[in-house]
Amino acid sequence: MPLPELELIRRIRRAANQGARNPGVGIGDDCAILPVPRGHELLVTTDFSLDGVHFRRDWHPPDSIGHRCLARGLSDIAAMGGTPHSAFLSLALPADLPQRWVDDFLRGFLKLAKQYKVQLGGGDTAQSPAGVLADIIVVGSVPTGKAILRCGARPGDLIYVTGTLGASVATLQELRRGKKFWPVTQPRHFYPDPRLTVGRYLREHKLATAMIDTSDGLSTDLRHVCDESRVGATVEAAALPHTQADASLQFALHGGEDYELLFTAPPDKRIPKSIDGVPLTHIGAITRARQIKLKSPEGSSQPLLPGGWQHFA
Amino acid sequence: MPLPELELIRRIRRAANQGARNPGVGIGDDCAILPVPRGHELLVTTDFSLDGVHFRRDWHPPDSIGHRCLARGLSDIAAMGGTPHSAFLSLALPADLPQRWVDDFLRGFLKLAKQYKVQLGGGDTAQSPAGVLADIIVVGSVPTGKAILRCGARPGDLIYVTGTLGASVATLQELRRGKKFWPVTQPRHFYPDPRLTVGRYLREHKLATAMIDTSDGLSTDLRHVCDESRVGATVEAAALPHTQADASLQFALHGGEDYELLFTAPPDKRIPKSIDGVPLTHIGAITRARQIKLKSPEGSSQPLLPGGWQHFA
Repeated sequence: MPLPELELIRRIRRAANQGARNPGVGIGDDCAILPVPRGHELLVTTDFSLDGVHFRRDWHPPDSIGHRCLARGLSDIAAMGGTPHSAFLSLALPADLPQRWVDDFLRGFLKLAKQYKVQLGGGDTAQSPAGVLADIIVVGSVPTGKAILRCGARPGDLIYVTGTLGASVATLQELRRGKKFWPVTQPRHFYPDPRLTVGRYLREHKLATAMIDTSDGLSTDLRHVCDESRVGATVEAAALPHTQADASLQFALHGGEDYELLFTAPPDKRIPKSIDGVPLTHIGAITRARQIKLKSPEGSSQPLLPGGWQHFA
Repeated sequence: MPLPELELIRRIRRAANQGARNPGVGIGDDCAILPVPRGHELLVTTDFSLDGVHFRRDWHPPDSIGHRCLARGLSDIAAMGGTPHSAFLSLALPADLPQRWVDDFLRGFLKLAKQYKVQLGGGDTAQSPAGVLADIIVVGSVPTGKAILRCGARPGDLIYVTGTLGASVATLQELRRGKKFWPVTQPRHFYPDPRLTVGRYLREHKLATAMIDTSDGLSTDLRHVCDESRVGATVEAAALPHTQADASLQFALHGGEDYELLFTAPPDKRIPKSIDGVPLTHIGAITRARQIKLKSPEGSSQPLLPGGWQHFA
């Protein structure tokens, strides 16, 4: 391990231990050691954040890249109705990357970690063959048997989403056209807030039968739920929540990286209008027929095919 | 998520479920769900395997790269005296990589996983901006409070290593010079066997006070143990086990990626000559004075500075 890596580990360890609940054993030994709450199961999720694939250093400030890197993992925990405990960060950096960039990346990462009481438990560092490469691992827990899976949707269930759809890809489209943003004005793209409180509320109140986060876009993520649950769905185009003027229906249907929650609930469950200040919107229903249809305001319907999220390719 | 990724996930899921103990929830949902044995703590480790940094596709066959990728994580679990349960693989691949390569990589990965009853629990896939990029996460467990840490070495403890040192970097040096190998003839480089049985034996029999795996090379890894334990050490050059004719003392001292175990034990503990067929060699002692010294067969001594492992840079 070359000395610059040791220095990076030292900086990460120092940064991570500021405000940590239990510094304990973690960065610096071969493995992190984590206690597991009694009666709970473990949740583990991993997500790459790769230069030129998931972000671009000329578009995204380093603290946004750090925030988004962790938000991807936290959003997966939210989608199970779980509580995150620890994050592990594997970070490969080009030799010529300014130290300032790394500090700002970590600042964005750790600010979000602190907000959700997530401890940076360890990770790996390496010199990168190409750009900044990060892999985030988040470990959380959920009471045994209570995780909200993708496979629980039943015909007749209603479909809901949190927040709004398409805002992230709308910003991305403008970045592609060369527009510069003051990042805080576009928080759903630069600093998405993972819906942990909503996910946990839905689990604790036994409201949701299936759940996923909209990381790949509604059309793709709803397809995942339908495939795993062996059902179909009808989505009402007019119901889709897209408040931004520049976020068209196409963005709301296919745009990814919104990190909202998409969930299903039986029709007799009373779903709140909002949870923790995040609006919930009824957008459709689960069907027995295994197709996904988009219904226009005029009543005609067409197949909704997964458009998916092509990142920055 | 572009369709080729879905196809890759399907292939990984299919491969992972062959021979899995509990298919359970894993690949295909937002998070993997893992049960945790009662009275146990969790071990988590992450390690990059990056094209041109940790391996080279023109030197290493894909099944060796898959094997080494997982071995890195398993070796970290061994170094805590733990038992591995699940692995998570984040894999970014260049668009033009032949499917055959991926299949062979997974074959090497899963063969080792099966050997140690490790289940592939999930991961992430992406298109790579440069070469093959893998990040391996291994989750294991250890009875609560029983992990063997780096910080437990005490003055007077004796220092031991498993197996032999320097063989991996000796092979690497030959690869650098253009030599071609039949990989199975150089197993410590191409197919290193993580010392899980030895690590667990040492923990169960309460023999070791501190332990680390020799992934960065003896001089660097012993330094980690001494730093964390706030002690020094004397290493006997003549005692170092390097059986290969071409593995010089320098390779044994500084070569990395041997994935042997380096541990300390009180002088009154009887350490077996071998465990599970792996020889254990007494190579030195822990000292109160916080320096690391190398003692020559003639009795003179000199400081042993961390040489470290520079990978393929």
